[in-house]
Amino acid sequence: MAAPSFDFTSRWARAASLMEGYGVDALFLMKPANLAYLTGDGRPCALGLLTRAGRCVVAVPASDLRSVRMASAATDIRAFHSEEEMFHGFRDVLAEHGLSEATVALEKNFFDAALYEVFTAHILSKARVVPAAPILSRLRMLKEALEIECLEAAAAVADAGMAAAAGTVRPGLRETDVAGEAERAMRKAGAEGWASATYVASGWRSALAHGPASLKPIEAGEAVQVHVAPVARGYTVDLCRTVLVGQVTQELAEAMEAYRDAQERGIAAAVPEAPLMGVDAAMATALGRRGFGDAFLRPVFHGVGIEHEEAPIPGGHAVIHGEEKVEQVAAGMVLAIGNCGIYRESFGVRLEDTVWVSEQGPVPLTRHPKLLRA
Amino acid sequence: MAAPSFDFTSRWARAASLMEGYGVDALFLMKPANLAYLTGDGRPCALGLLTRAGRCVVAVPASDLRSVRMASAATDIRAFHSEEEMFHGFRDVLAEHGLSEATVALEKNFFDAALYEVFTAHILSKARVVPAAPILSRLRMLKEALEIECLEAAAAVADAGMAAAAGTVRPGLRETDVAGEAERAMRKAGAEGWASATYVASGWRSALAHGPASLKPIEAGEAVQVHVAPVARGYTVDLCRTVLVGQVTQELAEAMEAYRDAQERGIAAAVPEAPLMGVDAAMATALGRRGFGDAFLRPVFHGVGIEHEEAPIPGGHAVIHGEEKVEQVAAGMVLAIGNCGIYRESFGVRLEDTVWVSEQGPVPLTRHPKLLRA
Repeated sequence: MAAPSFDFTSRWARAASLMEGYGVDALFLMKPANLAYLTGDGRPCALGLLTRAGRCVVAVPASDLRSVRMASAATDIRAFHSEEEMFHGFRDVLAEHGLSEATVALEKNFFDAALYEVFTAHILSKARVVPAAPILSRLRMLKEALEIECLEAAAAVADAGMAAAAGTVRPGLRETDVAGEAERAMRKAGAEGWASATYVASGWRSALAHGPASLKPIEAGEAVQVHVAPVARGYTVDLCRTVLVGQVTQELAEAMEAYRDAQERGIAAAVPEAPLMGVDAAMATALGRRGFGDAFLRPVFHGVGIEHEEAPIPGGHAVIHGEEKVEQVAAGMVLAIGNCGIYRESFGVRLEDTVWVSEQGPVPLTRHPKLLRA
Repeated sequence: MAAPSFDFTSRWARAASLMEGYGVDALFLMKPANLAYLTGDGRPCALGLLTRAGRCVVAVPASDLRSVRMASAATDIRAFHSEEEMFHGFRDVLAEHGLSEATVALEKNFFDAALYEVFTAHILSKARVVPAAPILSRLRMLKEALEIECLEAAAAVADAGMAAAAGTVRPGLRETDVAGEAERAMRKAGAEGWASATYVASGWRSALAHGPASLKPIEAGEAVQVHVAPVARGYTVDLCRTVLVGQVTQELAEAMEAYRDAQERGIAAAVPEAPLMGVDAAMATALGRRGFGDAFLRPVFHGVGIEHEEAPIPGGHAVIHGEEKVEQVAAGMVLAIGNCGIYRESFGVRLEDTVWVSEQGPVPLTRHPKLLRA
């Protein structure tokens, strides 16, 4: 990792202003994505505290102290030698900063319920605990120019993976063989890891809501959904294509074309200040008009960035994910559009692209061709 | 996926007997690993309820209904069309089974704290909610013969990945290139996915607690930690090796040999009815004797199976992970032993193997040679 090049001071200032609005004295951080955003270092198994006054304390495994010092913008970096020490040490950090009885925002959609109970009872016993998601989502939802560069890098890796997958699909190969070629191509293109499993779902498996590659062999006449989500420069994108193998039924070809049209309309609806659910409405209307309204699963989009799914998350899903509802598209959002698909009994089709909402309108970052044949 | 071949009726009977002991009327399931164990189908985005009376209801996305019917042992399979329907539908399921005011065990170490609050308030508002982990961990901790076969298959995939990685490591290649070759070899050998990121950590990065592959180039004289965790037949194993590249310092070579010796002693301590923490003590004593006691991070082992880390989890870690402490090694446990390493400022070494505790004693399932040079 290079030294952080993001402007963390400005991120902390924006965080402080949101903390003020929510009456929060400090953000307690454990989610790697949030630590990455606020300190430049998002390794797992670390804890952080960002105070409204602009102090940023992190605690990391003792083995990692030197590398965190190189990578992190935190003002105070401490080491722990065990999980017990990791959590208990934070009682002292709060006391030192006079925050033992303060209002502390916690990542309630990251902590598991068991740890949350132990943690609030033993470490934050006198504090007032509120959810951190509203503040962190608002901060991370609107991407900076440098973040768009990172997302472009991740998109180029995803496109390379899709090209390898599309070039590999043929009858007789197993789904896992296609996944292996896509992943290797993405590694060569600079993938540091995967934000989600590689999906390769052929034939009846393409009709599943979730299709991680299996040992099923691909057959002629099938739809093969390929979905990649590489991480590069600390950011990830979503890219999905459906490859049609050999001669396919007219229904499948029509579904593919209908979905392509609907996704295009969904993307076109992602303009600054438009209603966010307009993306959903544009796709739903287009699919309904072509007779696929009933075969369509939601949600059709979600935010993407450091995480595979992040704010904005649409409507009811936002609440389930511990996020706030967002009403409008805004310049700086990055949306994965097409995260749904047409599902019939024997096939499914899906196209998903990662789209940056610029001041001038939607700019797709993933660019692999849409209609693929093998 | 083939039709389930595990004996689910017997698993439900054992679950019922544990439920009786804990005063629990039903297990509510959302964690894919637990759904896989109790129904044969562990796809994400599904819910299940197993009652003490032996009824097993699952709810899955409408698109997946047919394939779940093929794969799941559940007695009652329902479909939902949205996340809202997914959760609200379970209120009706509880009412139908007369369980609205019952004692329901929930996976508190899986639910996030935000969803847990919403769920207990709206879906289980009249129920008595208790943690499910003690019951599920006891069930899954002792593996059946057929599970050992699945683990052997996953171990063979991991060994194939390690062979590819060890054969690829050389100065000038990036860590991600090595990861790409290892992953491709594992896909060819039947990997359905990854239970953890592929670690390739060279030089100073080998001294980190967590080392997912980065773009860092490998150099002569370095230690390169490679860690693979493929999924095959629904099970995963842990396998870690450290490859020494070219001429290395005497300190590094000695650390490698000391760790090899310590891990061997740790494995040898995993005999039925021995104290579980004896595995830790055996490794710690051996490392201390060679002067590496201070450079050693815990925990040294954890259970492995459907999940990358599952019961038994040692001591204090168990509590943090919402698990119960386990005192003794038992036949049927499968342990990843060596999950720690010697850490110095400029290098780290680690060896980790997945070991089945048979009636006759420890049987390593991962078998790649221990001392590797490139």
